[in-house]
Amino acid sequence: MSGIFISLEGPDGSGKSTTAAKLVPQLQQLSQKEVILTREPGGSSISEQIRQVILNVDNTSMDSRTEALLYAAQRRQHLVDVILPALAANKIVISDRYVDSSVAYQGAGREIGMKQIWDLNLFATDNLLPQLTLYFDVPPKVGLQRINQARAQAVDRLEKETLVFHQRVADAYQQLVQQFPQRIVSIDAQQDPTQVKDECLRIIKQRFKLGE
Amino acid sequence: MSGIFISLEGPDGSGKSTTAAKLVPQLQQLSQKEVILTREPGGSSISEQIRQVILNVDNTSMDSRTEALLYAAQRRQHLVDVILPALAANKIVISDRYVDSSVAYQGAGREIGMKQIWDLNLFATDNLLPQLTLYFDVPPKVGLQRINQARAQAVDRLEKETLVFHQRVADAYQQLVQQFPQRIVSIDAQQDPTQVKDECLRIIKQRFKLGE
Repeated sequence: MSGIFISLEGPDGSGKSTTAAKLVPQLQQLSQKEVILTREPGGSSISEQIRQVILNVDNTSMDSRTEALLYAAQRRQHLVDVILPALAANKIVISDRYVDSSVAYQGAGREIGMKQIWDLNLFATDNLLPQLTLYFDVPPKVGLQRINQARAQAVDRLEKETLVFHQRVADAYQQLVQQFPQRIVSIDAQQDPTQVKDECLRIIKQRFKLGE
Repeated sequence: MSGIFISLEGPDGSGKSTTAAKLVPQLQQLSQKEVILTREPGGSSISEQIRQVILNVDNTSMDSRTEALLYAAQRRQHLVDVILPALAANKIVISDRYVDSSVAYQGAGREIGMKQIWDLNLFATDNLLPQLTLYFDVPPKVGLQRINQARAQAVDRLEKETLVFHQRVADAYQQLVQQFPQRIVSIDAQQDPTQVKDECLRIIKQRFKLGE
């Protein structure tokens, strides 16, 4: 595997998607490599079909473990269809969410257990973890406020969770940051957007010795 | 849990579905309990949505692990929606396929590994196994011939596998029979259909001391 695999993590409203979009052209110029920005289930018909089942607002009786298994299924297919081919072609892959999201949201948020969701996702990914994970750290309340301002109506099933749920998710992310100090770097995502983007670029540049 | 949970296993064409249909009324009379005959994903809208993704003939690029995760997901939802409520209501539940099918088909047939599929399904079922599993033993070749005769056209994606695949599945089932001698009882499914049905009834009657 000759490419570089980076994941972005954090609560909704943490600004990671917006930052990523601005990051890509600069990273491409810096690295002289093709940079792919992807999000699960992106770019794969099968993953998209699975995603539709997960986010269907009528599926209110979906069990938490069913949900966790479906996330793992679409992650697997997205990995096989999008990420692995790009890495094999020496590209830089930035994935907006990956394994840590499931550990935080299903493992801690839904209280299935972080360890169980971790094991499930190691099966789904066949142990392929990103070389670097950027964690966009904002208090859950701030993230939720940003989302509510941005789209008053289009809230999907998963966003209709309580603040208590989102606090569990935030605590789980903090645990993951402690647990994987080499892989995960925490970024203060309450800074000015340009500062956040510059910090991401600096960390990536340094970690992979790009543009030297 | 006051009900009785029985699963039926074996290759397609082993006659388990036909036998089950004849078994139910007799078992109901014998036990004086309500008997539910179910098959995954039956009776659940979410499971059915997942099933549609699995069996969609256009999804030829589906990865084996994705498939295994989707089977586990629909199994979980079927368990929660159908099996657990029936067991709680003191019913006898007969499930046409359950965990062993995935261990045999995905673990051995698709060569992901029986142990990994076993662990995945213990997560999906939260360790709930049937009290009795009836294994309908026929050589893969016989099963395939029966299917081909029955429906020359309507063959789904999973049935279009080679005989080598089905031999791996059969070998895995034999391993499971060895591994769980208390839970799994093997039945010669090449006997006359009435004999097969009578043998099933006799085993269930004896195991759960029904009609005494």
